[in-house]
Amino acid sequence: MDLTALAARNPEHWRRAACIRTLTLDAVAAANSGHSGMPMGMADVATVLFDKHLSFDASAPDWPNRDRFILSAGHGSMLLYSLFYLTGYADMTLEQVKNFRQLGAITAGHPEYGHATGIETTTGPLGQGIANAVGFAMAEEFLRAKWGKKVIDHYTWCIAGDGCLMEGISQEAIALAGRQQLSRLIVMWDDNGITIDGKVSIADRTDQKARFAASGWDVFECDGHDPADIDRALTAAKASAGPAMIACKTHIALGHAAQDTAKGHGALTDPKQLQAAKDGYGWPHGAFEIPADLKAWWEGVGARGRAAREEWETRFALMSDSKKAEFVRAFAAEAPKKLAATIRALKKQHTEARPKVATRQASQMALEVINPILPEHLGGSADLTGSNNTNTAGLGTFGPEDRKGRHVHYGIREHGMAAAMNGMALHGGVRPYGGTFMVFTDYARAAMRLSSLMGVPVTYVMTHDSIGLGEDGPTHQPVEHLAMLRATPNLLVMRPADAVETAEAWEVALGQTRTPSVLALSRQSVPTLRTTHTAKNLVAQGAYVLAEAEGKRQAILLATGSEVAIAMAARDLLQAEGIGTRVVSMPCWEIFEETDEAYRRRVLPAGPVRVAVEAAIRFGWDRWLYGERGKREKSGFVGMHGFGASAPAEDLYAHFGITPEAVAAKVKSLL
Amino acid sequence: MDLTALAARNPEHWRRAACIRTLTLDAVAAANSGHSGMPMGMADVATVLFDKHLSFDASAPDWPNRDRFILSAGHGSMLLYSLFYLTGYADMTLEQVKNFRQLGAITAGHPEYGHATGIETTTGPLGQGIANAVGFAMAEEFLRAKWGKKVIDHYTWCIAGDGCLMEGISQEAIALAGRQQLSRLIVMWDDNGITIDGKVSIADRTDQKARFAASGWDVFECDGHDPADIDRALTAAKASAGPAMIACKTHIALGHAAQDTAKGHGALTDPKQLQAAKDGYGWPHGAFEIPADLKAWWEGVGARGRAAREEWETRFALMSDSKKAEFVRAFAAEAPKKLAATIRALKKQHTEARPKVATRQASQMALEVINPILPEHLGGSADLTGSNNTNTAGLGTFGPEDRKGRHVHYGIREHGMAAAMNGMALHGGVRPYGGTFMVFTDYARAAMRLSSLMGVPVTYVMTHDSIGLGEDGPTHQPVEHLAMLRATPNLLVMRPADAVETAEAWEVALGQTRTPSVLALSRQSVPTLRTTHTAKNLVAQGAYVLAEAEGKRQAILLATGSEVAIAMAARDLLQAEGIGTRVVSMPCWEIFEETDEAYRRRVLPAGPVRVAVEAAIRFGWDRWLYGERGKREKSGFVGMHGFGASAPAEDLYAHFGITPEAVAAKVKSLL
Repeated sequence: MDLTALAARNPEHWRRAACIRTLTLDAVAAANSGHSGMPMGMADVATVLFDKHLSFDASAPDWPNRDRFILSAGHGSMLLYSLFYLTGYADMTLEQVKNFRQLGAITAGHPEYGHATGIETTTGPLGQGIANAVGFAMAEEFLRAKWGKKVIDHYTWCIAGDGCLMEGISQEAIALAGRQQLSRLIVMWDDNGITIDGKVSIADRTDQKARFAASGWDVFECDGHDPADIDRALTAAKASAGPAMIACKTHIALGHAAQDTAKGHGALTDPKQLQAAKDGYGWPHGAFEIPADLKAWWEGVGARGRAAREEWETRFALMSDSKKAEFVRAFAAEAPKKLAATIRALKKQHTEARPKVATRQASQMALEVINPILPEHLGGSADLTGSNNTNTAGLGTFGPEDRKGRHVHYGIREHGMAAAMNGMALHGGVRPYGGTFMVFTDYARAAMRLSSLMGVPVTYVMTHDSIGLGEDGPTHQPVEHLAMLRATPNLLVMRPADAVETAEAWEVALGQTRTPSVLALSRQSVPTLRTTHTAKNLVAQGAYVLAEAEGKRQAILLATGSEVAIAMAARDLLQAEGIGTRVVSMPCWEIFEETDEAYRRRVLPAGPVRVAVEAAIRFGWDRWLYGERGKREKSGFVGMHGFGASAPAEDLYAHFGITPEAVAAKVKSLL
Repeated sequence: MDLTALAARNPEHWRRAACIRTLTLDAVAAANSGHSGMPMGMADVATVLFDKHLSFDASAPDWPNRDRFILSAGHGSMLLYSLFYLTGYADMTLEQVKNFRQLGAITAGHPEYGHATGIETTTGPLGQGIANAVGFAMAEEFLRAKWGKKVIDHYTWCIAGDGCLMEGISQEAIALAGRQQLSRLIVMWDDNGITIDGKVSIADRTDQKARFAASGWDVFECDGHDPADIDRALTAAKASAGPAMIACKTHIALGHAAQDTAKGHGALTDPKQLQAAKDGYGWPHGAFEIPADLKAWWEGVGARGRAAREEWETRFALMSDSKKAEFVRAFAAEAPKKLAATIRALKKQHTEARPKVATRQASQMALEVINPILPEHLGGSADLTGSNNTNTAGLGTFGPEDRKGRHVHYGIREHGMAAAMNGMALHGGVRPYGGTFMVFTDYARAAMRLSSLMGVPVTYVMTHDSIGLGEDGPTHQPVEHLAMLRATPNLLVMRPADAVETAEAWEVALGQTRTPSVLALSRQSVPTLRTTHTAKNLVAQGAYVLAEAEGKRQAILLATGSEVAIAMAARDLLQAEGIGTRVVSMPCWEIFEETDEAYRRRVLPAGPVRVAVEAAIRFGWDRWLYGERGKREKSGFVGMHGFGASAPAEDLYAHFGITPEAVAAKVKSLL
């Protein structure tokens, strides 16, 4: 590579971009780990983007109308940290850069949302960022339509690498963005031809430009080391009618001995090679040293959007107080005050009408009253709208035809849906929920984990939550998924037993600001078990006594969801034989675990036999089958021991022995 | 739709295809559930495929050289069952067809591998079948190169729907197949423009033909209701140089009132409409009735490949006995007899050399001795070859450049890799293993579940199995994944503690014929703990006493993987204080659970305090922290309580308190 010729194109630009390159080299060398090549390769594109296009203000990283910049190729985190430090984000001190990848630093190996300000989303698992970006751009379209261009009117920029584009989720994102005609979305593909194992071509020879074009994107190209050409492409992309992809031809690890090699992807720490690279850049400065003139220039870039931001704030201040409050509330992901009364009224109605409905239908009944008072609630389904019951009266369909529509046809793209919802929630001002069959959490899993890790309050409406879905058979019957979801940190897994608990579960989910929720909902009908109205939200306790033992308490039945009715029927059988039996409904283990031990011991006192009932595998239930402390209770489990089968639901419950009779027999065998 | 005109094109074909359409209508009506529209729409394509192209023999469904036919759009299972019944597969009786979706029938809602013969793979979760098909086609290329065209020389056919093509996994499959230039792979896209929520265009406007072409496929089109045009397209596709995609323009639910609508996708059970559709087909016969002349014709189709199959058998019989035995062994997924001695020798070597290596390196050491004696072992990695340590000396790279190569560059496609491996294992004759970081089981999850459900002996080499990976941070650190994998039925999750256990784990994995395995392997070095050679495979017991207490046994430490060394160090601390401490290594819970209770009680006797140590969350551990029966032991857990962090591994272990000192302190607090 003739670096001199590159530098000569635009010497000032060259020095500015070298700030990113050298900070990256120094930080990776100090950490002795990380990824040098990507920031070194994309430094020119990033410099032009920040200098001339990205609308932001380093002094106000939370400005709601800022452009969003998403580094989908998250391993190149030093690109972000360099830019934040250079442009003057207050928390990104040089000390933090020097502590790259060290305990307690905000400069984690991959960008972690909530660590450094300016990180819009956690990336690293490849392909997530580009799918998040689609959600950001959808949120922007929705909010621009809702609040007007004076309030929301920005671009979403994303840098994606070859790894992002090989992951299947990228196709879901690309196709969804194309259908949604997201003209404010611009993806800059770091076309460097290198992955960890070698040249991209050893595993992929896809014509990426043709692939994007096939889904309705406008495709551009640029020499990723020519600032004028980059500027031209970025300018053109902003004017595109559809989502824009810019193939940025770059050299990974530009100027290093490892340039254009797989080695260049990783940590370049050899001191001599590092110095040689700096020499090639014409960089005489010490490690982590940025000359004052360059730092000043970059800080100017960081301040470039200040006027726009201040003008925005002036405009915002002129809005009515109620509108402002509504905007702030929505961006804070706070539920409206009316929610509690709305849910209470619905619960009262249910305790009186006692509907026998599937909890997925009960979920729709809850949404019918929630959606009118939660205007930022943006629903959708992965092509199972009628089955997931996610749509409600008059929501409208979100799309280029109607940007105020509030239900999204995500297509058969569970993973893309989950990642887009993460993007929407992270954007702020939108509260997303989306549905699929619970077994297909398998497809969405990588994005759902990021909901939990980032702490974004997305609601997953997961219907058909057990063998109760019947004939579709084992491929569609979740048996291990409750355990998998419960095992995931910072995720509320709620499996309501009836229409009342379903309403309560929605209230709990909407009360979260830093935790995603899964609602595990039945396909099949269940009776209303909560026949006495309580103002109190009992799901919010995690578990509670649904029915007390009559006479001496000899047994406690623990159950969730559709099996609570089975436990109640088993209780009838046992009580008829004089066996005092308590039924504990446990809709949310995570909350119950967080309640105080005294409450847990009141709900699950030592002494009686314990039998858990759940149409899923036992894994995890031992936590509740043994006493809180002291002597071990006799206990048993009625549920699944492996995969399901294809047959009508009632036949399956009988076949797998998940019946009131089986539960009663299990209790009696333990007494 | 002018059915008369369609019928007039080729009246004989029309009646033959009507057999599929009417059996589908009748079976779905009888079950009152299922999917009528897809088999009705693709009946013509399937008829031409089976009549003129598919090389198969209904009387020998296991013929190794048959063409493979994969119904990726698995909800259209009645297409398969109709074809199997019509062509005379022995187990597909009319009774089975009539019992569609009923308990115990082989005609499950979605095609379940192992139920009806002829089902090559379990489909239903969309996109899996097309990705399996890529694996089938890769296996065919490998085996053709290895055994010669006289032994293996066939096509892989796949029907995929719009749902398959919207799922991200399809992109991974398409791009991988394109790179691999799988000229024997032919995908017939059921281009009917309909999904459950409505027209495909509400969620997707991708030009699928352009998309496939962008990845190097040869693309064809046909009128999916014109037998001559279908035949032309299929003939052309077989001659293509790359993988072939045929866009088959069809009408879902052809001839039914619900034709070309989302309703047509589902169960069409209205008796009047059903009769009207049959009338339109000119079908005067009763429910499930196939006229004798048509049944005879179809059985002729089923017998069409008999001669070819018999010729193949003659050729096969002429092979040397040792070659035949090798072929049969490989297709039975049986390990070679030499394996046991090979592993024993390696173990002996390890106990003497006592290497301090990461278990991922130990895995490579095992593979170095396994691969030479297991010629069907086909490895690979999702672009992490050097990190997963999956490649061994002289394996060669599998690809169009070398079809005898035995290591695959799967690209950054964990999901596609897992599904392709399923296809390879299902094909037979190939034993696949593949690697990625353990946290990215999240991406591969849906295909891994199908490994378990189908019972195919794939080995997942999942390295970087805890916070021990260090600086890459929480996005890359699995904490809940051991629990998720352990929760999955029919999956062996093995987390070896050192080089010896790693060798044993490989032996256990390769001994499976109906169960997939996950090897959870460390990034960081661990000492050799098994310093005394045992011929016996101790991992094959699930758990065992690694170190006995000296003096009175007061505590039992339970640990897996890299934390066994921590438990051993904690034991040293405790023994130094006179606290007799046993250490139990538990590399595989599933096997331990299946051993007899007496053995479990010997390993985990009642009485001593129990403390588990694992750099993962506690979920699931309660099963082992309480006594097998009788009184509850005092117990504790040292491990993770949430997500990890980005820092050097040693710092993280200290930060999260997973240290010998913390374990010893926990024991003492319980005594």
